[in-house]
Amino acid sequence: MTNAQLQSVLDHIDKDFDNSLERLFSLLRIKSISADPAFVADCIAAAEHLAKDIASFGVATEVRPTAGHPAVVGKTAAGGRPHVLFYGHYDVQPVDPLDLWHRPPFEPVVTDHADGRKIIVARGAEDDKGQVMTFVEACRAWKKVTGSLPIDITFLIEGEEEVGSKNFVPFIEANKDEFKADYVLVCDTGMWDRDTPAITTSLRGLLYEEVKITAANRDLHSGVFGGTAMNPIRVLTKILGGLFDDDNRITIPGFYDGVKDAPPDILAQWKKLDFTPETFLKPIGLSIPAGEKGRLLVEQASTRPTCDVNGIWGGYIGEGSKTVIPSHASAKVSFRLVEGQDPQKIRKAFRDYVSARIPGDCKVEFGDHSAGPAIALDWNMKPLAAAKTALTEEWGKETVLMGSGASIPIVADFKRTLGLDSLLVGFGLDDDNIHSPNEKYDLRSFQKGIRSWARILAVLAEVK
Amino acid sequence: MTNAQLQSVLDHIDKDFDNSLERLFSLLRIKSISADPAFVADCIAAAEHLAKDIASFGVATEVRPTAGHPAVVGKTAAGGRPHVLFYGHYDVQPVDPLDLWHRPPFEPVVTDHADGRKIIVARGAEDDKGQVMTFVEACRAWKKVTGSLPIDITFLIEGEEEVGSKNFVPFIEANKDEFKADYVLVCDTGMWDRDTPAITTSLRGLLYEEVKITAANRDLHSGVFGGTAMNPIRVLTKILGGLFDDDNRITIPGFYDGVKDAPPDILAQWKKLDFTPETFLKPIGLSIPAGEKGRLLVEQASTRPTCDVNGIWGGYIGEGSKTVIPSHASAKVSFRLVEGQDPQKIRKAFRDYVSARIPGDCKVEFGDHSAGPAIALDWNMKPLAAAKTALTEEWGKETVLMGSGASIPIVADFKRTLGLDSLLVGFGLDDDNIHSPNEKYDLRSFQKGIRSWARILAVLAEVK
Repeated sequence: MTNAQLQSVLDHIDKDFDNSLERLFSLLRIKSISADPAFVADCIAAAEHLAKDIASFGVATEVRPTAGHPAVVGKTAAGGRPHVLFYGHYDVQPVDPLDLWHRPPFEPVVTDHADGRKIIVARGAEDDKGQVMTFVEACRAWKKVTGSLPIDITFLIEGEEEVGSKNFVPFIEANKDEFKADYVLVCDTGMWDRDTPAITTSLRGLLYEEVKITAANRDLHSGVFGGTAMNPIRVLTKILGGLFDDDNRITIPGFYDGVKDAPPDILAQWKKLDFTPETFLKPIGLSIPAGEKGRLLVEQASTRPTCDVNGIWGGYIGEGSKTVIPSHASAKVSFRLVEGQDPQKIRKAFRDYVSARIPGDCKVEFGDHSAGPAIALDWNMKPLAAAKTALTEEWGKETVLMGSGASIPIVADFKRTLGLDSLLVGFGLDDDNIHSPNEKYDLRSFQKGIRSWARILAVLAEVK
Repeated sequence: MTNAQLQSVLDHIDKDFDNSLERLFSLLRIKSISADPAFVADCIAAAEHLAKDIASFGVATEVRPTAGHPAVVGKTAAGGRPHVLFYGHYDVQPVDPLDLWHRPPFEPVVTDHADGRKIIVARGAEDDKGQVMTFVEACRAWKKVTGSLPIDITFLIEGEEEVGSKNFVPFIEANKDEFKADYVLVCDTGMWDRDTPAITTSLRGLLYEEVKITAANRDLHSGVFGGTAMNPIRVLTKILGGLFDDDNRITIPGFYDGVKDAPPDILAQWKKLDFTPETFLKPIGLSIPAGEKGRLLVEQASTRPTCDVNGIWGGYIGEGSKTVIPSHASAKVSFRLVEGQDPQKIRKAFRDYVSARIPGDCKVEFGDHSAGPAIALDWNMKPLAAAKTALTEEWGKETVLMGSGASIPIVADFKRTLGLDSLLVGFGLDDDNIHSPNEKYDLRSFQKGIRSWARILAVLAEVK
């Protein structure tokens, strides 16, 4: 292919952008919340919508059942060219607390950010519908302008990323042969900042646990039983409240075993970055780093393991007061893991820690939501250099290779099941409010994201 | 009045008992949950129903507005006889968790307890509709059989007891002159055990606080911000988890100031009681007293101050998982207070304790639900001896004078606003599940409760 072809594709993308936006909006209007069983039909609808949309530009695409929400699988005709597996997800996070949204989360709009940026606001605007559609639209443009795609592509878009891909991974394993490719392209990560593109080369892992502590066999009146009957909230808060020491280190025995310090040269580079409480925490209303004392903020955010209670509940949580001692109390607790930590060992260490602190007449039950190790990608994989060049050309700034604090466990699964490395390119920003009310995607991220993929597809055709 | 008259009244009560039950059921069917604004109309309906019912046996009764849920006020014609103010409440606790109820909470039934006892099951069956109706039915029987009541009675039944009587107390204060009487009869307490009647002579106070801790200005993604942004659940659990030391003593500075030990002779009596983990905690599935080490279980339950987290919530509490760091987390925390503790001082000590532990970039807000001091009643008040005799006659066992762990703050308000002492007689049992799913009232408590009041009304006529 020629530079002229690429330029035609880029021109078409700009010209057709309003239609790209309308196609994204159609997908955003579908309430594909994977965590909540009330939205099963919406997840199926999103898969069907996406399959039809990809098929519309000539890629044979179908909705494939799994034991959970279905996957979308599309395949270009095999052309003997470089062959990538494109991965994304159509499922989204729950929307609560709904009252904090300024508009209904499934009625997307383009609006003005306080600082004047144009933004797309909706649940999934970024994570991951907006990102998936940057790739889909780039492919559509190539097909429209040149009649074909520059490389062979298998589309593989799942519906359970936000709930741990429990049924999707077995689906890949059961259909390994179908998903052979040279490597994976993943579009579910961010830029370094608003103007600087990035390729993510390491990801933290995730272990997500649920804990339920039961004391009495029924709810009790605190006047009758207060002072004599153990309150499970007391047990739970004492355990969770003890998870951090005064230096903000996690107190679970063995938690830091195997965790390595970043090399001195990397640390030296990081010290030069403008990544400070002022730049990173102030926009969210905070000023004091909550991570381990003595570590750089960038280490706390990307290369150190963490623990967060993502949810806690017990007793009476309605309006007014109720003098109840509840029978049980629960929490959702997750850990971001780094290289050297084994999720199963951390799970056992956490459960042992909790169990050792349960009074003799109370009991604890555990539930697991997901467990994935951290990933360090191969910085030397050939497509990486090519994609870096393409991104730099589109954005006019040098592409940063960065570590991410977030987890995309599927990357490890692709390596394990298919033997494939992944290349992680995405256009999210730290202020996109993903997993929060008023999720947004910069209109610029969407448009230049499509253009970026158009360029990357061109250069990947040259990588053997 | 004569013994023959009393006997006729008691006989009538037994003969008419099915109708008494049906009248109680009519009241139990009204969803008068005072804590939840969704049930305002039901609270009004309960007040109107009760007013009509009391008026039906010739007591001039009306529904009186307050700034909150209305009160029911009924007055017999002044006969120059001993004059009591009868107090109870028609409001009930919320019913959640609803899925633990074996039947709908507002569809009362008489059913068999596992041990063969006949029980009335419904929200409010005991607290306080069942108890109120023991008194109402006793009055109805006296009126029906003899044409009049033995003493002058003012009925005063409120609709906000379960939410701290915030609007009811000003209502009493504003109408002091109406509520002059010799003393108050309160029916909202329990028996010593299933066979042994009791008069409650001391009550713990209650301070009920709400705490909300805010960290970031929005919910965050734990992958992006985990390790750098403070999680308000971490702050909340650390504070609440630190409220007790290893001896189960409350750690708030000054909390025990002014709390007196029970006198040696009382302690010696208590040691003889069969009040043990085996008798008191085993039925609720527990075995280890949660109160201060070195104290008798009966002290922990009635004369020592306590602290309980009655509710806690924050972050994602739905099904599945969500990797959120919430913006805020909340808890409802209450304290049972004893003689010598000033609720306002304890409130300040608690708020100071919490505030001192909030990180510099987080904030805390407090809400108050109620604050009432502990009460020690006058053991020598004349009606007490008379009521004790009447109860002993009805039940065939010596009446116990006991301390209660629960709070009835209105008792202090009656003393302060009207200068009146209260006599606390009730027929609840420890296993009535008040404030819990499957609340019940023993059918025997209801029937013999009515008979008990019929006897008490007779003897009080003789107390000058």
